Amino acid sequence: MTTVSRAAKFAERTARLRASTIREMLKVTQQPDVISFGGGLPAPELFPTAGIAEAARRVMELRGAAALQYSVTEGLSEMRRWVAERMTRRTGRIFEAEDVTIVNGSQQGLDLVGKIFLDPGDHVVMENPSYLGAIQAFDAYQARYLTIDTDEDGAIPESLERVLDRADPFPKFVYLVPNFQNPTGRTLARERRERIVRICERYDLPIVEDDPYGELRFEGADLPSLVSYESSAPILYSGTGSKIMSPGMRVAWLVIRDEEIREKIVLSKQGADLHSGTFAQYVFHEYVSDGAAFDAHVATIARTYRRRRDVMAAALNHIASDGLHFVPPSGGMFLWVTVSGIDTTELLRVSAEQKVVFVPGVSFYPARDVHDGMRLNFSNASEEMIRVGIERLGHAISTFKR
Amino acid sequence: MTTVSRAAKFAERTARLRASTIREMLKVTQQPDVISFGGGLPAPELFPTAGIAEAARRVMELRGAAALQYSVTEGLSEMRRWVAERMTRRTGRIFEAEDVTIVNGSQQGLDLVGKIFLDPGDHVVMENPSYLGAIQAFDAYQARYLTIDTDEDGAIPESLERVLDRADPFPKFVYLVPNFQNPTGRTLARERRERIVRICERYDLPIVEDDPYGELRFEGADLPSLVSYESSAPILYSGTGSKIMSPGMRVAWLVIRDEEIREKIVLSKQGADLHSGTFAQYVFHEYVSDGAAFDAHVATIARTYRRRRDVMAAALNHIASDGLHFVPPSGGMFLWVTVSGIDTTELLRVSAEQKVVFVPGVSFYPARDVHDGMRLNFSNASEEMIRVGIERLGHAISTFKR
Repeated sequence: MTTVSRAAKFAERTARLRASTIREMLKVTQQPDVISFGGGLPAPELFPTAGIAEAARRVMELRGAAALQYSVTEGLSEMRRWVAERMTRRTGRIFEAEDVTIVNGSQQGLDLVGKIFLDPGDHVVMENPSYLGAIQAFDAYQARYLTIDTDEDGAIPESLERVLDRADPFPKFVYLVPNFQNPTGRTLARERRERIVRICERYDLPIVEDDPYGELRFEGADLPSLVSYESSAPILYSGTGSKIMSPGMRVAWLVIRDEEIREKIVLSKQGADLHSGTFAQYVFHEYVSDGAAFDAHVATIARTYRRRRDVMAAALNHIASDGLHFVPPSGGMFLWVTVSGIDTTELLRVSAEQKVVFVPGVSFYPARDVHDGMRLNFSNASEEMIRVGIERLGHAISTFKR
Repeated sequence: MTTVSRAAKFAERTARLRASTIREMLKVTQQPDVISFGGGLPAPELFPTAGIAEAARRVMELRGAAALQYSVTEGLSEMRRWVAERMTRRTGRIFEAEDVTIVNGSQQGLDLVGKIFLDPGDHVVMENPSYLGAIQAFDAYQARYLTIDTDEDGAIPESLERVLDRADPFPKFVYLVPNFQNPTGRTLARERRERIVRICERYDLPIVEDDPYGELRFEGADLPSLVSYESSAPILYSGTGSKIMSPGMRVAWLVIRDEEIREKIVLSKQGADLHSGTFAQYVFHEYVSDGAAFDAHVATIARTYRRRRDVMAAALNHIASDGLHFVPPSGGMFLWVTVSGIDTTELLRVSAEQKVVFVPGVSFYPARDVHDGMRLNFSNASEEMIRVGIERLGHAISTFKR
């Protein structure tokens, strides 16, 4: 029998553990009449297909040879400059193109972070619950998890301090999604942001700030990114074009001011896939380079998702169920619902029969020990589908409770 | 100080070892008047820019929403089917779409192979010399190398047997580039192919067959792929669109009939970057789906490279240097020259002053112990540039010997 690596065995074991319910659900969603709140897909009807066709035409006409050739690992210099400028504008802190590494979707950024920091058995600190894709990326390096308690204002700084005081071995980094977190939709409160940066600075602990949804804010003012604070401890920022442009382009970025860490990321990416798609980067850059039009495009996405969130929240309010609780998020793509006393993995079986699916919350808890949550995506389905789907979910909950 | 992983430290150490001369050379090649035989770039003037613009237009018009959306880890089903059909046609053995995993350039395929097979200190068997990108991919998993002796007919089966008889620990797989190998341009002789498959079968040792150049044959008949033989030991085939279409698309594939290994590759890719670019896969597939036009395109590439090889070989024959030896390859992109008694890393310093560069052969020997080879790329420069560049190389050799 062929012998696979310990990492492959570990990854398979943990994946089997984590993915079984989701895999089951995905089988159901292939039926056309099922309404899925399970994925994390952007609204496809908002993809700028004509604009991208035109961008591809211009790129092929003017820079075709470069756009189809091998390129450097760090990424296309125009893309890196665009990211640095946008980051500077959004954070008020100055970023340079050289801080930016273009990666193949933010999942690759997380994989590279795992690769350069983690040895088997190392600890990663994350919110409880946290993003499943990050857990999967770090699982590949046989990580273990220490979790921070959270409330409606996101990660609780005192909980982080307690975790770090006791941690053994001391963790390699803290992973956080401060804006419209996946799965909870929660946003880390302003005053907690600087406190968390200072705690990590005191421990010289790197922060990985994952911010896929930051630009999809529906109301209120932007809060400062963690990376906008000066700190002597490294802060690695992960951003992506997937939610504001297209996930199929696989254009995302890590922004890292620490030169030593950045070099290790680049070296690691070089071995992993040489570089991200040149063609996609050129077309992406060509499309976004009309800044006003692109900002309008992002605003349209946020406006559409805001309406969908409102429709979903209104529909959820009609569900007559004791113990159903949710707080509408101020942005992003996910609404987190808890139904006290219910195991949502069990509920999913009933709701799949009612032709509506979601992701059971347990998947997002590294220890898989909390069972009453569910993640509902509101970006992908139309308003009408959201209404129908939530009505079905209400029936499923009543049926389940009976 | 931030603590990085053992893998990151190892990768940095080995990369520093392997890449220093190449990095130095790349600095020189940025000067516009330098002729570079150093890279492995396809001829950019042959890229089908108009065809790709048109393919992008059609994809955006007809399948825009799907082409910009998230997709499955295994790859676009149309692309997988296309690869399977092409493999079936080329090898005479039947492959199914489900055998195919689309990866982000063949470098990612090699990285995933390393990830699922290798623990630190594990042995990989490869030709001596072998492809630098593979060494870098496996370095990231802290591999060690056992090397097979080679001659003009490629890897020597008896040498492989000797290596396997003595190996401790027993290697995880054999990595081979049977067609127009990088760096030597050599092709594994027909009778050696089945022998090597049978040796590996006897030891139940997986083969990783890397075949980026197989379709770029200039003369003679195709030889059977290793994967075309029935064997009870797994054979993993790595193919790519980089040399027949565009490296900037990052569309490559692993073809694996062993279901268990394939599942581990897919799981590993899921954690590494979720999936390859949907947009690039759709555009790639749209472009190649006119089969006759695409075959003509590949034939044009091969014809062009053949002429360039001839020009380079003729020019090399004019160099009056004792001990200069080469055998023109029957395909691919590289010509391997040895100059007995010369350290080509030293020669590179002189030749860079003469405005011509190449990759010193030592980079391709895992043990870095052979110094008289150089790899010359003939696909990227025009015939005129090749003539001028080889003339300069001749001067550099004379100067160096003096």
